[in-house]
Amino acid sequence: MPAAAIRGKRQHLLIVGGGFGGLWAARALADAPVRVTLLDRGNHHLFQPLLYQVATAGLSAPDIAAPLRHILRGQQNVTVLMGEAERVDTAGQCVRLANGASIGYDYLLLATGANHAYFGHDEWAVHAPGLKTLDDALLIRRRLLSAFERAEAETDTAAQRALLSFAIVGGGPTGVELAGTLAEIARHTLRREFRNIDPRRARVLLIEAGPRILSTFPESLSQRAQRQLERLGVSVHTGQPVTAIDAEGVTVGETSIAARTVLWAAGVAASPLAQSLGVPLDRAGRVAVDPDLSVPGHPRIFVAGDLASVHSDGKPVPGVAPAAKQMGKHVARAIRARLSDRAATPFRYRDFGNLATIGRRAAIVDLHGLRFSGFPAWAFWLAAHIFFLIGFRNRAVVLLDWAVAYWTYQRNARIIVGR
Amino acid sequence: MPAAAIRGKRQHLLIVGGGFGGLWAARALADAPVRVTLLDRGNHHLFQPLLYQVATAGLSAPDIAAPLRHILRGQQNVTVLMGEAERVDTAGQCVRLANGASIGYDYLLLATGANHAYFGHDEWAVHAPGLKTLDDALLIRRRLLSAFERAEAETDTAAQRALLSFAIVGGGPTGVELAGTLAEIARHTLRREFRNIDPRRARVLLIEAGPRILSTFPESLSQRAQRQLERLGVSVHTGQPVTAIDAEGVTVGETSIAARTVLWAAGVAASPLAQSLGVPLDRAGRVAVDPDLSVPGHPRIFVAGDLASVHSDGKPVPGVAPAAKQMGKHVARAIRARLSDRAATPFRYRDFGNLATIGRRAAIVDLHGLRFSGFPAWAFWLAAHIFFLIGFRNRAVVLLDWAVAYWTYQRNARIIVGR
Repeated sequence: MPAAAIRGKRQHLLIVGGGFGGLWAARALADAPVRVTLLDRGNHHLFQPLLYQVATAGLSAPDIAAPLRHILRGQQNVTVLMGEAERVDTAGQCVRLANGASIGYDYLLLATGANHAYFGHDEWAVHAPGLKTLDDALLIRRRLLSAFERAEAETDTAAQRALLSFAIVGGGPTGVELAGTLAEIARHTLRREFRNIDPRRARVLLIEAGPRILSTFPESLSQRAQRQLERLGVSVHTGQPVTAIDAEGVTVGETSIAARTVLWAAGVAASPLAQSLGVPLDRAGRVAVDPDLSVPGHPRIFVAGDLASVHSDGKPVPGVAPAAKQMGKHVARAIRARLSDRAATPFRYRDFGNLATIGRRAAIVDLHGLRFSGFPAWAFWLAAHIFFLIGFRNRAVVLLDWAVAYWTYQRNARIIVGR
Repeated sequence: MPAAAIRGKRQHLLIVGGGFGGLWAARALADAPVRVTLLDRGNHHLFQPLLYQVATAGLSAPDIAAPLRHILRGQQNVTVLMGEAERVDTAGQCVRLANGASIGYDYLLLATGANHAYFGHDEWAVHAPGLKTLDDALLIRRRLLSAFERAEAETDTAAQRALLSFAIVGGGPTGVELAGTLAEIARHTLRREFRNIDPRRARVLLIEAGPRILSTFPESLSQRAQRQLERLGVSVHTGQPVTAIDAEGVTVGETSIAARTVLWAAGVAASPLAQSLGVPLDRAGRVAVDPDLSVPGHPRIFVAGDLASVHSDGKPVPGVAPAAKQMGKHVARAIRARLSDRAATPFRYRDFGNLATIGRRAAIVDLHGLRFSGFPAWAFWLAAHIFFLIGFRNRAVVLLDWAVAYWTYQRNARIIVGR
């Protein structure tokens, strides 16, 4: 049989989503006898753990993103397509796109992740943007920088104070990163640049409904994180939920706080694409997958990353980048197994530990009982993130940006674009 | 008299526009006994000569921009404000802003530059974006990258060909830079990244209504530039104007060309702010200023940069960055002279020469008769532009980006954001 004919008979895997789950699956199938199509609504893979740096003007968008088709250019069995998946047609074995086209599949991997969710208060979205995509990050950057600019031009003291009040809702890793970095910007980066305001008087509030911030860490590290945040100038409010958000600010319990900039880091919900599967979803909209990451009743459909709800060693697998990568690689192994009629193995999450950065020289690390914080934790976090950034150039530029930023307190992407 | 009172009596200079003219004027008044307010609609100074690199995904926006208030942070007599000037009220000696506020002045410098103009065909704007701001550059980048993405997903051959046809209208420096770089992207950068299209088959057309491209250069250099462009893969069309632009493409004379991406580099018109002065403007909307750069009949109002029409040594001063900088510095000198009741001197343009880049290892240089092209001209252009980029970090990052880009043919900002 001629090569083209054999190739034509190859099974087709459609991957939806070029994040850690989807991209790692595609890479793990480099020499497999399967045609792969990677569909993403953007043209790039995003290194999401550093997205808060783009939002806070430390890095530029291209520093933490790389074109998917460039990453996969050498892998001849992969076609990258940009397009928005709208729903899965399980009966027709295809995925319908927003532009009306559809793409058939023999195997399907859904890795579209999660988006921010407002717990039934979608009207908050316009006042309190969340941080999931590069566009989100550029919007937040614009709001943060514009707030200081508008405060400088404002003559009314109360309005000025509201412009210099920043409320971050949600005490998870993203909320903590945003609050710590924002406090550093106000206290150091912008010093001496304004004539009518003192940016050091800016208030940065971190609001967490639960009893403590960074609740996935041991309590002792949560406390250390809170102390480090407070040292950077953040006021941390725990134990009371946000009950209202509007253009004027945020209401916590019964107390209204005038804050013209509110950021949302409180909740995520899985991508709505999963709803079209017609299988039960959990409260966050995730698919409760079988142990091999396939969808119950749909052995040719897999889910990886934040869209999947799965347990490993009796514990739920967290929605973090290493888990998504491991799931992506596992799905690749499962598909190889199916192609050669072997049985798929159950997914097991290898937990290397948990780290969160807080700000300049401040972080917490929990490596299975080895717990540390402060400068050593920050250095560890920095090394890990630089190491995992995709592509030589990005690493070098990010290192250079950060080295200069560290010594000068400057941030290199303080450019307002858009709107 | 206490120091504060003396300070309160200081004359106030309002500068509108933080480009080369406005920023260089502010810097030249560092130790002058005058209060300065620098008003700009953005928060940054833009190194416009490299804007085409942002549009063609070679550099990221923050690489070529720096916050105005950061540049001027050490200059205590300068206040930077972000806001949009709407009109000059010469009778009230103030500038009205779009948000309803107004700023009074003793001296006024208008340095708001030029924008692209469509010669009475404003309906072309939506199909053929021009390149003046960072937002323009990001829009063009999005269109260029999306065209290749859509071509890869397109199954109709004619539609695919239209998506892979790029028409650039205007054979001045910007049009030549865009065409040359785009041809390089299609031929080298994207090679091997697509499965359904061959990006090397992309057509790049440069359309110039006049008899030759780069008409401000001697004819021999124009010809060499055209040959270099053609070697890079650009088809150059001269001698016929564009008569129509729509969503399908561009009509040159009587010939319609199907091109889904059209870029406008053909015409500029001075900023409309000058219209509110109530003085005669030239055909391009520029203010015909007196030899000391003040506005006829308004000795306290000056104009610098692309908004000014002025002659030096009997020749019109060109709308280039070095001229804008020199005018800005001259206005600073003129204001110092006024403050100490000395007479202002006429502006004289020091012309250091003329250079234009075309693409990889291709450029032309004209230094008062010393004319060269090709690699030496390109190296000269590169050195000059790196040298003049503001700020250490930008220079280092741009150099690193370009060194990597040169060896790998890669472009580091191929990220689609927005819309």
